[in-house]
Amino acid sequence: MELSEALFKRRSVRKFTAEPVSEENVLELLHAGMSGPSACNKTPWEFFVITKPEVLEKLRKAARYSKIEAPLAIVVCGNLSKALPSQLSPFWIQDCSAATENILLRAVDLELGAVWCGIHPMKTAEKNVREALSLPEKFIPLNIIYIGHPSEEPEARDQFNEKKVHYIK
Amino acid sequence: MELSEALFKRRSVRKFTAEPVSEENVLELLHAGMSGPSACNKTPWEFFVITKPEVLEKLRKAARYSKIEAPLAIVVCGNLSKALPSQLSPFWIQDCSAATENILLRAVDLELGAVWCGIHPMKTAEKNVREALSLPEKFIPLNIIYIGHPSEEPEARDQFNEKKVHYIK
Repeated sequence: MELSEALFKRRSVRKFTAEPVSEENVLELLHAGMSGPSACNKTPWEFFVITKPEVLEKLRKAARYSKIEAPLAIVVCGNLSKALPSQLSPFWIQDCSAATENILLRAVDLELGAVWCGIHPMKTAEKNVREALSLPEKFIPLNIIYIGHPSEEPEARDQFNEKKVHYIK
Repeated sequence: MELSEALFKRRSVRKFTAEPVSEENVLELLHAGMSGPSACNKTPWEFFVITKPEVLEKLRKAARYSKIEAPLAIVVCGNLSKALPSQLSPFWIQDCSAATENILLRAVDLELGAVWCGIHPMKTAEKNVREALSLPEKFIPLNIIYIGHPSEEPEARDQFNEKKVHYIK
């Protein structure tokens, strides 16, 4: 799909069929995620790929907005042992967000649907996801991306708003 | 361009020709940025589009990594008055990062080059950008994206690393 089409077709999809996402498509999503930029190219990300029903159930209970039935979840985590020391380390959030956007766009391209459920920095949700995945201390869950074959198709949307543009010329 | 091609072609470009970026292309980049997702669809972003030489000069001096000669800079800012209250407000960083990744990808698609220079949360760099753009208090500069016609072309790259993938099935 053309990039410009995928950008506007990318909408939050929260209803999915029971059809699993193929292993091939999972790999395509992960390649997309890891192609993103990162501060000083530290790639401070980890990707948890969850299809186990009991764990998906725990993720649904992890946060107010995470109650979504999907055959697949990818939890994008920051790896603080890989991140830069001192004042640069908070960049993992930005790096993992760019990786997440790449995954969402590639999902559209693969005719999948997806939704980004924010976890970090909501402390209770973070703790719940940490427990559900038995995360080591150094990994911080940024979000849960639910992915599947869509059973709803929100319309493509352009949210351009000229009031948000400030020219200095 | 196919999305899958743009994902891997997107590399940091730091050398540009003197040719300006057309107004039409600037608009395409802004449409791409604003098509990104945001928590509760609060779209807590503002885009400063800078072509004024004196201000570009100030941006170059704003941070250690921002000394880049480009005909155009877009500074993506969070608008905290638009963001959610309390614990949800930090999501502006994730929202603006997704918008930034969209701009970087669309730049590739338009045969432009671009580089993401992180500003927030480095306090001195933030202050310098704030002063250069005379930002109101409620706007926080996340980054400087330098954009132009590339005079270097880094090779497409796939950074997939299976060690960063954890299956729970």
